[in-house]
Amino acid sequence: MKNRPHNKMKKEKILLAFSGGLDTTFCAVWLAKEKNYEVHCITIDTGGFTSSDYEQIRDRAKLAGVSSLEIIDGKQRYYESCIRYLIFGNVLKNGTYPLSVSAERVIQAVLLAEEAKKKNISVIAHGSTGAGNDQVRFDMLLEILIPEVTIVTPIRDLKLSREAEIEFLQNNGIEFDFKKAAYSINKGIWGTSVGGKETLTSHLPLPEEAWPTQITRNDTQELKLGFIRGELKTVNNKIYDNSVSAIEAVHGLAAPFGIGRDVHVGDTIVGIKGRVGFEAAAPLLILKSHHALEKHILSKWQLYWKDQLAAWYGNWLHEGQYFEPAMRDIEKMFESTQNYVTGDVHVLLQPYRFTVCGIESGNDLMQAQKGVYGEMNSGWTGEDVKGFTKIFGNQVKTWMHMHNTDEYEKV
Amino acid sequence: MKNRPHNKMKKEKILLAFSGGLDTTFCAVWLAKEKNYEVHCITIDTGGFTSSDYEQIRDRAKLAGVSSLEIIDGKQRYYESCIRYLIFGNVLKNGTYPLSVSAERVIQAVLLAEEAKKKNISVIAHGSTGAGNDQVRFDMLLEILIPEVTIVTPIRDLKLSREAEIEFLQNNGIEFDFKKAAYSINKGIWGTSVGGKETLTSHLPLPEEAWPTQITRNDTQELKLGFIRGELKTVNNKIYDNSVSAIEAVHGLAAPFGIGRDVHVGDTIVGIKGRVGFEAAAPLLILKSHHALEKHILSKWQLYWKDQLAAWYGNWLHEGQYFEPAMRDIEKMFESTQNYVTGDVHVLLQPYRFTVCGIESGNDLMQAQKGVYGEMNSGWTGEDVKGFTKIFGNQVKTWMHMHNTDEYEKV
Amino acid sequence: MKNRPHNKMKKEKILLAFSGGLDTTFCAVWLAKEKNYEVHCITIDTGGFTSSDYEQIRDRAKLAGVSSLEIIDGKQRYYESCIRYLIFGNVLKNGTYPLSVSAERVIQAVLLAEEAKKKNISVIAHGSTGAGNDQVRFDMLLEILIPEVTIVTPIRDLKLSREAEIEFLQNNGIEFDFKKAAYSINKGIWGTSVGGKETLTSHLPLPEEAWPTQITRNDTQELKLGFIRGELKTVNNKIYDNSVSAIEAVHGLAAPFGIGRDVHVGDTIVGIKGRVGFEAAAPLLILKSHHALEKHILSKWQLYWKDQLAAWYGNWLHEGQYFEPAMRDIEKMFESTQNYVTGDVHVLLQPYRFTVCGIESGNDLMQAQKGVYGEMNSGWTGEDVKGFTKIFGNQVKTWMHMHNTDEYEKV
Amino acid sequence: MKNRPHNKMKKEKILLAFSGGLDTTFCAVWLAKEKNYEVHCITIDTGGFTSSDYEQIRDRAKLAGVSSLEIIDGKQRYYESCIRYLIFGNVLKNGTYPLSVSAERVIQAVLLAEEAKKKNISVIAHGSTGAGNDQVRFDMLLEILIPEVTIVTPIRDLKLSREAEIEFLQNNGIEFDFKKAAYSINKGIWGTSVGGKETLTSHLPLPEEAWPTQITRNDTQELKLGFIRGELKTVNNKIYDNSVSAIEAVHGLAAPFGIGRDVHVGDTIVGIKGRVGFEAAAPLLILKSHHALEKHILSKWQLYWKDQLAAWYGNWLHEGQYFEPAMRDIEKMFESTQNYVTGDVHVLLQPYRFTVCGIESGNDLMQAQKGVYGEMNSGWTGEDVKGFTKIFGNQVKTWMHMHNTDEYEKV
Repeated sequence: MKNRPHNKMKKEKILLAFSGGLDTTFCAVWLAKEKNYEVHCITIDTGGFTSSDYEQIRDRAKLAGVSSLEIIDGKQRYYESCIRYLIFGNVLKNGTYPLSVSAERVIQAVLLAEEAKKKNISVIAHGSTGAGNDQVRFDMLLEILIPEVTIVTPIRDLKLSREAEIEFLQNNGIEFDFKKAAYSINKGIWGTSVGGKETLTSHLPLPEEAWPTQITRNDTQELKLGFIRGELKTVNNKIYDNSVSAIEAVHGLAAPFGIGRDVHVGDTIVGIKGRVGFEAAAPLLILKSHHALEKHILSKWQLYWKDQLAAWYGNWLHEGQYFEPAMRDIEKMFESTQNYVTGDVHVLLQPYRFTVCGIESGNDLMQAQKGVYGEMNSGWTGEDVKGFTKIFGNQVKTWMHMHNTDEYEKV
Repeated sequence: MKNRPHNKMKKEKILLAFSGGLDTTFCAVWLAKEKNYEVHCITIDTGGFTSSDYEQIRDRAKLAGVSSLEIIDGKQRYYESCIRYLIFGNVLKNGTYPLSVSAERVIQAVLLAEEAKKKNISVIAHGSTGAGNDQVRFDMLLEILIPEVTIVTPIRDLKLSREAEIEFLQNNGIEFDFKKAAYSINKGIWGTSVGGKETLTSHLPLPEEAWPTQITRNDTQELKLGFIRGELKTVNNKIYDNSVSAIEAVHGLAAPFGIGRDVHVGDTIVGIKGRVGFEAAAPLLILKSHHALEKHILSKWQLYWKDQLAAWYGNWLHEGQYFEPAMRDIEKMFESTQNYVTGDVHVLLQPYRFTVCGIESGNDLMQAQKGVYGEMNSGWTGEDVKGFTKIFGNQVKTWMHMHNTDEYEKV
Repeated sequence: MKNRPHNKMKKEKILLAFSGGLDTTFCAVWLAKEKNYEVHCITIDTGGFTSSDYEQIRDRAKLAGVSSLEIIDGKQRYYESCIRYLIFGNVLKNGTYPLSVSAERVIQAVLLAEEAKKKNISVIAHGSTGAGNDQVRFDMLLEILIPEVTIVTPIRDLKLSREAEIEFLQNNGIEFDFKKAAYSINKGIWGTSVGGKETLTSHLPLPEEAWPTQITRNDTQELKLGFIRGELKTVNNKIYDNSVSAIEAVHGLAAPFGIGRDVHVGDTIVGIKGRVGFEAAAPLLILKSHHALEKHILSKWQLYWKDQLAAWYGNWLHEGQYFEPAMRDIEKMFESTQNYVTGDVHVLLQPYRFTVCGIESGNDLMQAQKGVYGEMNSGWTGEDVKGFTKIFGNQVKTWMHMHNTDEYEKV
Repeated sequence: MKNRPHNKMKKEKILLAFSGGLDTTFCAVWLAKEKNYEVHCITIDTGGFTSSDYEQIRDRAKLAGVSSLEIIDGKQRYYESCIRYLIFGNVLKNGTYPLSVSAERVIQAVLLAEEAKKKNISVIAHGSTGAGNDQVRFDMLLEILIPEVTIVTPIRDLKLSREAEIEFLQNNGIEFDFKKAAYSINKGIWGTSVGGKETLTSHLPLPEEAWPTQITRNDTQELKLGFIRGELKTVNNKIYDNSVSAIEAVHGLAAPFGIGRDVHVGDTIVGIKGRVGFEAAAPLLILKSHHALEKHILSKWQLYWKDQLAAWYGNWLHEGQYFEPAMRDIEKMFESTQNYVTGDVHVLLQPYRFTVCGIESGNDLMQAQKGVYGEMNSGWTGEDVKGFTKIFGNQVKTWMHMHNTDEYEKV
């Protein structure tokens, strides 16, 4: 990051990551008016945008007078580079959070860097504040991908209040309805985060009205998810060439049940604890279904090692370290584990919850056993088990022989 | 295990682990009549027994004509030696199963060994079959604790059908109602397992009637769980000196909601896959509440390492390897992590599910941050974060500088 | 394993793993004379055999009157399926032992199974005793690969003394010089093991005369090892298409210096501790050189995760669990880490020891840094480091703020 | 860290970590003359200081005109808080480096903080440069322990050349012999580091003259190290109450042999690769002896888990994260593993190398087996092993039954 003079005759171009919200609209105007940049905007769609969202983004960009706006569909890249491995690893941070926002920032930063290179713009702005994870993710990934970049972060640097930002916009003739939502929402294909006054406390749950999806289903529905080598390929027998569409289909079916709501308490990259609500119907359904399938198909130690590595992989992705080469190595390991993770999972959707009913797979070890051992324990005798048991306990037996008094008392 | 002659003049004593079910009643009679043993029975209560269960056990023992019966309350020992650490480690095998049956077998085997020593009996019988985990747990733990023991396992060795066992009993003048339940149930303080024809398949869920607890609550109820150094000590402000009673209190409140039902698919010690339903309202509530508290109190790396070790610890306990000395080492680590895990957790009970609403603790790092940094990011500046980010990304930046083409294309 | 009648008119064929030593010569004769088998022998060369060894094996087989003998070169298969990954993982069991004997048993068992299938023989004999690891490796791998196999283990079953075996052979007219060596030696491409009376104690080292290789070099010699994607491809600039030959070349240069002698104390599969000497000049040189190269080329976390996984991988291979599918997954991870492990390592051979002097690689991150940061810390400022430090210490700072008294006193 | 005005009437006190070298002598004078501080110096001895070193430090402080100098013996605190656990964990970073310098910085920073509190001084100076690890360790630990501290780092901030520093001192009337050593040396009880022009390259070894200890022994010597619960308590039968003295005794015997020389290539906290020579005769001897003892006394899984945790523990200590609470948890685990690590280790010292000959311990599982199983395999039968083997291979057998074609071809 180098400081550069901005008041040249010919305006310098800047590429702004633009969402159409107050903060990035402020950035667009401030960078043009106060810093004399030629402002080019880019919006990266990692899921959750409706066509009216697109329209609003375009309207705001127009009002803000930006020189250009491009909306890029990053969903497929997001799936290929992140979500796929989060499914392979059954990644839930702290056993809860599917990394909804964490992972999408990576692909946003990468696409931002790619666009900057394509457009030959070497100054990039983003609207992150100074308290959270996103600033680290954007700054670090941009630095890694475009070492010569200049990064501009007006929101972090100016620390203006919401009111001051609105006033600045009004003073520049830009007035529209920036009504403050009671809850800040971030939508994406892998989940929607919800923050509000309750999530600043440690003890209050989010109220019903905070959740972005209204519950409209009070009945039950059967759902069948079909996986091929660990990837979701069918939903209720409909084939999806493209896993993004499959995820969206699951979301469409499950979200009206209020499935996948939870609160995540976690460690930010900057070392502080944070709490955030999230709605992630499709991720939770897919992860739990995939895991159920794996329990039938993978060996004990495959399940063990996947968990051990996934915990670190998820944490490291959360911290923006996507390009750490060990991530690629672990992904290769994950891919190898998925070779036989093919089959169907039966799920029952119910209001606020779901049940994984069972699985069917040609690779199900539990059913294969019958082929190998017939009526089960005909593959071995009681004597075999006695022998196993004797040998399996040998070292501990010797240990207890030496040290038994105190250890034995203990239990 | 040595073979011994059994037809001496003076009968040899045998200690039988007795539950009052068909299998162990058969064992009691068969060992006396066919093997000429003086049969002494021991029943170890690791939770879930009602007073009518006790009565039935006594009745059956009397009918079977055993020389003695002793019912031992093993709940406190079970808690102290196992459950406590399962809570510390938030242990859920394969992310699901609280090791309900696995862990109680350990304490049953230990108490069986202790009684055998106390009564000076060196022949022990148990009713395990040849297909599952329990035979390994009992045989191995007895071998470890009493290397000179002779173990007798009539059910595993004779492989009789249910009908043949009943006929044998009838031929010996013992007749009572051994009506076959459609589902086999194993109750304990840390959960109840349920097996039936559906759990032999991979795809069928258990039907409503299979679950041992009837759902009688359709409303909601607030629950407050108070932990001190990781142990449950209060339930809705009532203080429990004894964690066993606290767990039972949680069970009493939560079970009528149908909370904690699930199906576990796992790897048996003998290398085959198995599927079993379980009801574990109290374990699930306590584990998830405890974990929520830890997310606020422990550091990122404490949470990480607890998970890594707990996965192995849980698997190893499941496999009956309680006396492996590494288990003691990990328990010490777990205990150290619990030093500050003190506080209250607010939970909302709902039919079939519960919500962890939030926590209150004097050791909550999330709230402590306010004391350290005031209005949050006043503890550091945007420049500090930029510096952090630059250094945090240094190695990957160098890596990408060397190898960027292919890696970069990849995303 | 099924019991079969052996005294048919037409002799049943048996395939014997034959080494030409006393035990397997005894087996060959005993199986033919006492069990009436048609004995076919197979010797699998996994390294260390000289042409005179081959000749002796053929002579003994002839004397023993076997129906056929085949010597199979298993070195390339051994390298491809095991040694390669042991190098990638820098595997030294307990920080010491390159798994010399453990790993070669796997490939021997696999080739034995393949030959049995090819020859359509379903009875296999091996000469393992009942105390060690080899019986488990052979039995288990044969059962896995040919579930219908019958395994015959005369040495384990008969438990004859050395003298009794010799007497049996003499009674069958077979007499040759089975002079007992003071030390039992097992040679292979990945190291030679040495057992003797000292290794049965815990405190005695092996005497000079126990080591199979005489030390004939008292000077020093430079050695340059060239790796491509983690595999040894050049030795002192000579290119080897075939890594087996490269390993043999390193052995030829280094063994006369007495390099790579050590004693391993480890846990056998059957749960007892064992102690064994080994000479492994080439493995130690290659592993340490490869590791040195990796320290320059891999990231901190790649080095970390390779070590974590390699420890388990090595143990599991040692225990004969080669076909565990998690092994394949870890191998994929290892392969991924080796993508850039290309370069030369300079080593100095000295009597009894060697020094890794340094490395040269186009992928050396240490040298690449200069390209990225110029005269080093010009890539960041003191302020950047201060910022990094502040953020890096944030969570612990909050923790200490809450809990400082006791922790602080502690140090 | 706050900026403060320094030109008050009453001079502000500053506490300088002082070593008597050029850099810290420059700091002492510059802080007094240019910044008008009242300079108080503290030297923390973490080993390796001779009495003439002490004298030189005092002389230099006097010449520099400091207001006070205190030399604190930090060796015992260093041992208790760090070295002890490095021995318990057999910690060698990247399999090589005993963390000689890394660990001593922690205790130096802690003692510096304690002295600052005791003397009521809130401004602290240290002489770290901007390229390495030490700046992070000092800054972070001081921030954690004294959040209100002001840290002054003249060397990092001014970036003066050696010549400029000397000139400044001369201009201030301070002239003495700052002859530049060809190699920069850092001595401590847990090893001495050596840097020079060769360690800036990746391929050159350090020349003989670079190593601080001259080799004066060309013979051999027996050494017996006695451990009690993992701590070194006797050296050749002489009892040491104090492990620091025991370590010094080992150093005295072993250093003249040139034992423990190596080059470490590692990752600095700031993300760059670094290379440094080190001499660590006592650490290497103690760690390898301790590990040998453990291999006889600990179970397979204790050895496994210690290694897994020690790798992370060592890295984290290296990065200055001593106060991370997970470190305390792991230390408790380490302590638990050491309960029985008591016994003697026989070592043979030879020029440039040593041999761990064997161990003697009342807790040696290898010898205890004889008590349990008599003449070894009398504790179990061949049939027991066959049973074990069958069960141990069960899951893989089922797997291969399903997937055998491709996997089998693979080997």
